[in-house]
Amino acid sequence: MVKRSSHRTSGCPVARPLDAIGDGWSLLIVRDAFAGLRRFGEFQKNLGLARNILAARLRHLVEHGILAAVPAPDGGAYQEYVLTEKGRGLFHLLVALRQWGEEFCFERDEPQVQLRDRLHRLPVRRLELCSHDGRLLGPDDVVVAPTPDRRAP
Amino acid sequence: MVKRSSHRTSGCPVARPLDAIGDGWSLLIVRDAFAGLRRFGEFQKNLGLARNILAARLRHLVEHGILAAVPAPDGGAYQEYVLTEKGRGLFHLLVALRQWGEEFCFERDEPQVQLRDRLHRLPVRRLELCSHDGRLLGPDDVVVAPTPDRRAP
Repeated sequence: MVKRSSHRTSGCPVARPLDAIGDGWSLLIVRDAFAGLRRFGEFQKNLGLARNILAARLRHLVEHGILAAVPAPDGGAYQEYVLTEKGRGLFHLLVALRQWGEEFCFERDEPQVQLRDRLHRLPVRRLELCSHDGRLLGPDDVVVAPTPDRRAP
Repeated sequence: MVKRSSHRTSGCPVARPLDAIGDGWSLLIVRDAFAGLRRFGEFQKNLGLARNILAARLRHLVEHGILAAVPAPDGGAYQEYVLTEKGRGLFHLLVALRQWGEEFCFERDEPQVQLRDRLHRLPVRRLELCSHDGRLLGPDDVVVAPTPDRRAP
């Protein structure tokens, strides 16, 4: 395995999230939380992960503010895990991962699950990136530039 | 570190890509390839990775069809690494990662780099997911459903 140093202090917003979600299992836990799973046992059953590994991943996601551990609504002994606002902010990332997977990681006629609009049950469109004035942007249409340092006098 | 089993046979298009890009460094190499880096030494200088680790990550990305190793255009001894169509397909995933990082992984006034439209040099909009008829969709507006098995008679 690659020994990973921390991206905590990176100035790049692509790099900095990787401490929190750079591990594949974390993204699958977040996927399952979006699907409504809340209990340790539900995640374990769906992911087939060892208890200690799942516990470590859940703790990591709570520490990074992506999941919150809350008491079960039935007053039971178990806590539940729910997405925070930061966790729900991962929606487009999971959609992007899904759409790339659909296009490049399956054979043409292989069965797979598909994201559909809840209202009409029809497949959603591809994610779109637009400029401020609404032009569709691809990889050759963008540049990366530093923001002005707003902390300067 | 988590011992990762393969997601190669998963029916979920969120899970299946994780063998190819579930490692954070792979995404940073792809980010740098989008920025125009092509040579081993360029990636190494920018990422600060040990040679053997970078070599393994590059080989992994080539094996997964995300980068292609091509002869240097100057006829030199070194090969270069360029994004394939599958690699360029990661554009929206990197934008999603970047936008989540911008929103949740930086302090409000902390300097960072920003994605801008090449034409006007203005910040891009947030990624948008729309239904087939153009309605904006959030996490509560979608469901996951199996595709029909087109291999059935």
